[in-house]
Amino acid sequence: MIISTERGKRPSEFIVAPPPVKAGFCPFCHGSEGTTPPEIMAYRTTDSKPNTEGWHIRVVPNKYPALKIEGDIGKAGEGLYDKMNGVGAHEVIIESPNHKDTLSTISVKQFEEVLWAYRDRIVDLKRDVRLRYALIFKNHGEAAGASLEHSHSQLIALPIVPKRVAEELDGSLEYFSYKERCVFCDIVRQEIMQGIRVVTENQDFLAVTPYAPKAPFEVWILPKFHESNFENSQKHHYENLASLFSDVLKRMDKVLNLPAYNFILHTAPIRNGVSLQHYHWHFEIMPKLTKIAGFEWGSGFYITPTSPEEAASFLREAKI
Amino acid sequence: MIISTERGKRPSEFIVAPPPVKAGFCPFCHGSEGTTPPEIMAYRTTDSKPNTEGWHIRVVPNKYPALKIEGDIGKAGEGLYDKMNGVGAHEVIIESPNHKDTLSTISVKQFEEVLWAYRDRIVDLKRDVRLRYALIFKNHGEAAGASLEHSHSQLIALPIVPKRVAEELDGSLEYFSYKERCVFCDIVRQEIMQGIRVVTENQDFLAVTPYAPKAPFEVWILPKFHESNFENSQKHHYENLASLFSDVLKRMDKVLNLPAYNFILHTAPIRNGVSLQHYHWHFEIMPKLTKIAGFEWGSGFYITPTSPEEAASFLREAKI
Repeated sequence: MIISTERGKRPSEFIVAPPPVKAGFCPFCHGSEGTTPPEIMAYRTTDSKPNTEGWHIRVVPNKYPALKIEGDIGKAGEGLYDKMNGVGAHEVIIESPNHKDTLSTISVKQFEEVLWAYRDRIVDLKRDVRLRYALIFKNHGEAAGASLEHSHSQLIALPIVPKRVAEELDGSLEYFSYKERCVFCDIVRQEIMQGIRVVTENQDFLAVTPYAPKAPFEVWILPKFHESNFENSQKHHYENLASLFSDVLKRMDKVLNLPAYNFILHTAPIRNGVSLQHYHWHFEIMPKLTKIAGFEWGSGFYITPTSPEEAASFLREAKI
Repeated sequence: MIISTERGKRPSEFIVAPPPVKAGFCPFCHGSEGTTPPEIMAYRTTDSKPNTEGWHIRVVPNKYPALKIEGDIGKAGEGLYDKMNGVGAHEVIIESPNHKDTLSTISVKQFEEVLWAYRDRIVDLKRDVRLRYALIFKNHGEAAGASLEHSHSQLIALPIVPKRVAEELDGSLEYFSYKERCVFCDIVRQEIMQGIRVVTENQDFLAVTPYAPKAPFEVWILPKFHESNFENSQKHHYENLASLFSDVLKRMDKVLNLPAYNFILHTAPIRNGVSLQHYHWHFEIMPKLTKIAGFEWGSGFYITPTSPEEAASFLREAKI
């Protein structure tokens, strides 16, 4: 659990709406560059200056960060309990200068630029030895937790490997120890063979509805090649990923009528110098159609009313 | 992941609202007994007949169950994957015959009856050797996943111990192996000594905001005595629990203005014949104030804008 003092809230603030935003004003639009913290990185025309117009991808620090980049980790005990300081980075990747764009409407070329921004930020953050993990995710739509409408992803870099990631790493290592094969490579092989959960594929990537989804219409995008670290992929991989990812989001928009969604990049911890044999990076995309309630909290299991085979069939047959 | 074919949904059904309910009609109100599946159990006046009026607590099967009680578990493989049939029970505990009642407005005596119903259902389900766990939880309010407004809890009995429960059992066993003490007994001792996270307490129970909450204003209710199985507690424990639980919900209603919430009974698996030394039953109550989004999905960590010490202070000082 992370206590974010920058966001300190008294009870009454939970009841009213999120922080007021001036009607019609958006800090992520072109022309508003001065209203965000100074940019960390941007892809821009060669004649434009930092923090001015002329960019097509822009990365800025989150104005209300969950973690702060300054300071020591300061691990300490408090009786039974363990604590450490919230050292880390919280960045926003603005995916287009235009307010009306979404990842399903931008060009495949622009989508590829978003993926390059993910890669460039991970590579840069690897240099900070205090950091163990860079978590890249997107909340699209208010129901999925987006507090600003303008299309953006987030990166949170942490001084520890998060619980969910550690579980996935442990699970895949156990499988590898037993079988001497990557479990994700095995999933790719079985899914292509069975076909019933395939949404779409191209030369390098496969989009499937997972056998045990956490949400109805969940889709995973897996590289067909083995690689544990997103940032170690080849240039043509990012091109082919952009094209497949864009295709999948268009299908979801069509079948589910522009759903809110979350996606998460699952990739190896940033301190692994070499590629891991047992882990395999991938994206997990979860449309926000149902609520997490008492049963899911209590069990860690998810009830889905639509089987992954039915969901795949709807998505596969969508006319986009 | 559980695929609930009884609830089969085509994509269009996610977009429209939940199944239409006749305006003003509620299947859980007194007088509507004939509209639910036949009752499993009820606490009622001695002269009233099953499935008629005269009850004050009524337990019925869920009309749209996540799992069904008939059939074999049928464990099987599908290539890489494992599956089993959705054998189990899905019951609804109707907490009052009156539509306007909530757990914070009913009498302490009526609240105690709700707790007895939880206990009696667990004791009864223990006789089914196929079942491993009885998960009792409540979704209060639409934001917390309640699909019917009338106050009710749910019980889902499962043929396996759920992931989250197994993690908690493993974690507490590890602590016990190392320290030869129950971690929850240690938490109770430390929290009473520190005082800063205590919300309220009585002779048998302690209500605290946990050191590492999953949600702002989360509250745990822990027995001060050691016992792993909820159903093994003494009669006066249920009386004192009802009184403390009611008090906590009233404080939440006051401070957070009638929030939606989930609560979950954490108790040992039902096949443990004897009490476990390392585990300690308790309730976890989570007001629904923030959204679970990409970061929480990806990391398994939770960002809270209010520290547990601040939350405890607000709840402790509430005038109820």
